[in-house]
Amino acid sequence: MDLNALRKANPDHWFKAAAIRALTLDAVHAANSGHSGMPMGMADVATVLFEKHLKFDAARPEWPDRDRFILSAGHGSMLLYALLYLTGNPDITLEEIRNFRQLGAKTAGHPENTLARGIETTTGPLGQGVGNAVGFAIAEEILRARFGSRIVDHYTYVMAGDGCLMEGISQEAITLAGRQKLSRLILLWDNNNITIDGKRELSDTTDQPGRFRAAGWEVIEIDGHDPAMIDDALTRARHNDRPTMIACKTHIGFGHVAQDTAKAHGALTDDQQLLDTKAAYGWTGGPFEVPAEVKSAWEAIGAKGAPLRDDWEGRLAALSDRKRAEFERIEAGEAPKRLAATIRALKKQMSDSAPKLATRASSEKVLEVVNPIMAETVGGSADLTGSNNTLTADLGIFDLDNRKGRYIHYGIREHAMAAAMNGMALHGGIRPYGGTFLCFTDYARPSVRLAALMEIPTVFVMTHDSIGLGEDGPTHQPVEHLAMLRATPNMRVFRPADTIETAEAWELALTSTRTPTVLALTRQGLPTVRTEHTTRNLTARGAYVLADAVGKRQVILIATGSEVEIALKARDLLQAQDIGTRVVSMPCMELFAEQEDSYRRRVLPAGAVRIGIEAAVRLGWDRWLLGERGREGKAAFIGMDSFGASAPAGDLFRFFGITADAVAQKARDLLG
Amino acid sequence: MDLNALRKANPDHWFKAAAIRALTLDAVHAANSGHSGMPMGMADVATVLFEKHLKFDAARPEWPDRDRFILSAGHGSMLLYALLYLTGNPDITLEEIRNFRQLGAKTAGHPENTLARGIETTTGPLGQGVGNAVGFAIAEEILRARFGSRIVDHYTYVMAGDGCLMEGISQEAITLAGRQKLSRLILLWDNNNITIDGKRELSDTTDQPGRFRAAGWEVIEIDGHDPAMIDDALTRARHNDRPTMIACKTHIGFGHVAQDTAKAHGALTDDQQLLDTKAAYGWTGGPFEVPAEVKSAWEAIGAKGAPLRDDWEGRLAALSDRKRAEFERIEAGEAPKRLAATIRALKKQMSDSAPKLATRASSEKVLEVVNPIMAETVGGSADLTGSNNTLTADLGIFDLDNRKGRYIHYGIREHAMAAAMNGMALHGGIRPYGGTFLCFTDYARPSVRLAALMEIPTVFVMTHDSIGLGEDGPTHQPVEHLAMLRATPNMRVFRPADTIETAEAWELALTSTRTPTVLALTRQGLPTVRTEHTTRNLTARGAYVLADAVGKRQVILIATGSEVEIALKARDLLQAQDIGTRVVSMPCMELFAEQEDSYRRRVLPAGAVRIGIEAAVRLGWDRWLLGERGREGKAAFIGMDSFGASAPAGDLFRFFGITADAVAQKARDLLG
Repeated sequence: MDLNALRKANPDHWFKAAAIRALTLDAVHAANSGHSGMPMGMADVATVLFEKHLKFDAARPEWPDRDRFILSAGHGSMLLYALLYLTGNPDITLEEIRNFRQLGAKTAGHPENTLARGIETTTGPLGQGVGNAVGFAIAEEILRARFGSRIVDHYTYVMAGDGCLMEGISQEAITLAGRQKLSRLILLWDNNNITIDGKRELSDTTDQPGRFRAAGWEVIEIDGHDPAMIDDALTRARHNDRPTMIACKTHIGFGHVAQDTAKAHGALTDDQQLLDTKAAYGWTGGPFEVPAEVKSAWEAIGAKGAPLRDDWEGRLAALSDRKRAEFERIEAGEAPKRLAATIRALKKQMSDSAPKLATRASSEKVLEVVNPIMAETVGGSADLTGSNNTLTADLGIFDLDNRKGRYIHYGIREHAMAAAMNGMALHGGIRPYGGTFLCFTDYARPSVRLAALMEIPTVFVMTHDSIGLGEDGPTHQPVEHLAMLRATPNMRVFRPADTIETAEAWELALTSTRTPTVLALTRQGLPTVRTEHTTRNLTARGAYVLADAVGKRQVILIATGSEVEIALKARDLLQAQDIGTRVVSMPCMELFAEQEDSYRRRVLPAGAVRIGIEAAVRLGWDRWLLGERGREGKAAFIGMDSFGASAPAGDLFRFFGITADAVAQKARDLLG
Repeated sequence: MDLNALRKANPDHWFKAAAIRALTLDAVHAANSGHSGMPMGMADVATVLFEKHLKFDAARPEWPDRDRFILSAGHGSMLLYALLYLTGNPDITLEEIRNFRQLGAKTAGHPENTLARGIETTTGPLGQGVGNAVGFAIAEEILRARFGSRIVDHYTYVMAGDGCLMEGISQEAITLAGRQKLSRLILLWDNNNITIDGKRELSDTTDQPGRFRAAGWEVIEIDGHDPAMIDDALTRARHNDRPTMIACKTHIGFGHVAQDTAKAHGALTDDQQLLDTKAAYGWTGGPFEVPAEVKSAWEAIGAKGAPLRDDWEGRLAALSDRKRAEFERIEAGEAPKRLAATIRALKKQMSDSAPKLATRASSEKVLEVVNPIMAETVGGSADLTGSNNTLTADLGIFDLDNRKGRYIHYGIREHAMAAAMNGMALHGGIRPYGGTFLCFTDYARPSVRLAALMEIPTVFVMTHDSIGLGEDGPTHQPVEHLAMLRATPNMRVFRPADTIETAEAWELALTSTRTPTVLALTRQGLPTVRTEHTTRNLTARGAYVLADAVGKRQVILIATGSEVEIALKARDLLQAQDIGTRVVSMPCMELFAEQEDSYRRRVLPAGAVRIGIEAAVRLGWDRWLLGERGREGKAAFIGMDSFGASAPAGDLFRFFGITADAVAQKARDLLG
């Protein structure tokens, strides 16, 4: 490549792109870690995108109708940080660039949405941004259909590398996008033929354009260093009737001696090579210095969206009060005021009628009253709609001819479903929920974790939550999944015992703003255990006394979900022998752990033997059995210590000894 | 469709296929659950495959050179069970078919490899069989290269549905197979256009043939009910120089009134419809009855491989004693006798030289001595070779021109890597290990779980095991993953503290026959803490006293991995104040839990305060802190209760308070 010729051919473009490259080199050099090659390779594409196409107002990164720019190849974080700094983002200052990858900096190793405005999503785990982007694009379609294109009218651009495209999630995401013809979604593939281990051909020879076409995408192949081609491709992509993949042939580590090698993927920190590279760019700035004319050119790009945003504010103001208030409410992620009364009314009705229902059916009952009053909910399932009970009559199916549809047939794509839901939550204006079997949380696990890390209130409706699913057998029976989810920071795992607790859990999920929710729901029918109506949301305390001991309290049974019924039956057996037995329902360990000590002490007082009952592994239970004033020799756990088996559910509970008789016997043993 | 015409055109074929369909209908009817439609739809393909192509000897399902048949669409388990019963498999009797999906039956809801010979792998979680199949095919290539095609010469057939192909893992698997031109791999796509939610078009419009071609596969499209076309396609597929996908257009629930509908995906149990369907087949047998001539035709198919197997036994016997013994050893999954001495010698050398090494580098040191004496190891990494330290000089790279290569560049495909490793372990003759970052266990999670459920000794080399990885930040820093893996039944999670423990952990992993292993290894350097050589494998006890208290034992510090160093420093601080402090290294909680009570009591005696130290969440630790004669108020945990952050590792340990000073202070606090 002749860098001089490129520079002379288009100096305006060249120095803007060089600013990204120079800042990347300096930041990685200072941190002595990071990834130089990707930002250097994709700087031209990013420059043209930001200059000519991306609708944004750098000073107001939260503008709802901005185009979204998602860096799925999150290791190239300096590309994003450089763009934000150069255009005038209020959070990413030069000081932050200098502190790249240091404690407390907003410029973390990989972009984290919670650290700075303008970082649309947290990326780094590869392929996640591609999945998120599909959700962003769906959210835009739904909101545009709902509020009109004067209020919602933007694009989603996602930049992805070979890593993103080799990850399986990318296939789920692109086929979903292709099926839905998400024409506002544009993927920029950093086609540099390099992975960490070496040339891409070492591990992959996929015809990516062919693959995207097979998924229903338009494909445009360009030289990723030619500003005119980039501009033309983006223009064409914006006018396609389907999603577009732009294959950008680039040179990783552009202009560096390590260009086009795996070394360039990582940190290029050699002092002399840094100087040589800058010299090759014709770059005159010292470390972290951007010449004033280049910085002001970038700031002009950052400011060009301001009048557009002003116009948009005017159009928003021109909406009816009601419509504007609704838009602002859903953008803020606030539940409607009516929600509390709606949930209370359902609880009252269910306490009175005391139906026997699987909690997955209970969940459907809740959705039947919630969806009509929360137009921001968007439901779906990974091809288990009838099993997850996630579809209610009013939603409509999201499709080409019904962009107002609020139910998504995600297909057998748990991972992309979770990532897309995260994208919708991040977009704003949508409160996504989606279902699969609890066991297949595994398939969505990287995105479930990211929901927690990103502090977004995605709702995972996970049914068939134990051996209670029966004949499908151990491949489908979760035993370790509750522990796995409870171990994840900033995650609320609810395992409700009946319709009342399910309604309470949903209320908490729908009012959560910074924490995702997992609802672990049964396949099998359960009796209503909360037959006495309370207006208070008892599930909000995490655990509470469901049935107290009659006479001297000798035993405390702590159970969740379907095992609360077993605990109550065991209590009957024990009370019949004058053994005072309390039953504590514990639908959410995380919330109970958050309660003040005095409440926890009231629910779990010392001096009685304790038995935990849950058709899952013990891991995570010892805190409640041995801690919190419990003690060894006076506590036991009735649950699973192996995988399950294939048989009717009743047979399995007997086979694995999770029965009221076993619980009562264990209590008597502990009492000696 | 004109069933009569099809029957009359080829009655021999027809009734063999009808036997599969009738048994499926009867078994699902009896169980009142299961999946009828897939076996009914794919019966013709399966019949031709087994009759004309599959090399097997039904009486000897463990014959190493058999072709492998993998039912990735595991919900169609009755297809496999019917084939095994009809051909004369010794484990799947008619009684087992009658007990489909009942407690104790070998005919579980989804096929489980541990229940019967002839079930090559456990499927049901969709796409896993496709991933396994790639591993089976790689194993065959490697072993054929090593032992010659007179000993190893077989095909891998995998049957997959829309669900399998929509899952992301399928993309990772087929692109890996395409890259490696695994010409002995043949995928049979049950192209029936139906998913659980309805028509496939509801969620997916992917051009599957185009997608497979883009991945480097040959594609053949056929009518899946035409025996001649099926036969021809299989013949062509076997002679391709690359993997072949045969798109079989089929009718789900073939011949049933529910044919071609989502209803047919599930259990077809209506009595009259069952009779009508059998009548339409011209089937005269009663429930579970197969006419004698049909059964004997199937048994002839099951027996046709016997002479081939006899010939093969002769060829095996003709090998040199040494070569035959080696083949038999690796087939049996036995480690070589030299392994113990090799590990001991390395331990001695490392105890003497006491290097400061990251345990990922320690792991490489182990592999450097193990790989040369265990030719059955096949290593790899999901594009993190240099970071996972999984490649040793002797292995060679598995590629088209080096099928003896024992190192696989899996690409950025953690999920397919894990599934392929499982396939290799199931195939036999290979002991697979593969690496990624511990955090990205998430991406491979469904396959990691299946390794445990299938009772196979896959080894997962998971490096960068805590915030100690530093600047990459919380997206890459596991905090809940140790808990998640420990919660999984039949899984051994090792977190070694130095090279000695790493060697011991590897020895246990390489001698395991029924349990997978996770090695959680550091990025950062650690001192050698086991400077006194022992021949005994102390890691095999799960935990042991590394440094005992001097004077009265007041404190027990329990730590794993990189935190053992911190525990030892804290002990120094405490002993300097005459506070007797024991340090227990606990590299494997599962193994410690298996020890006899007297040993556990010796390691963790009552009467001292206990502090657990691990840069991860507390979940799973309370058993060792509050249980095992520990007690509340006298125990604490120093670790993580949130996600990590991006910064140099040292800063992070200080920021999160995981330091020797914090441990010593906590001990003093507990002692009051």
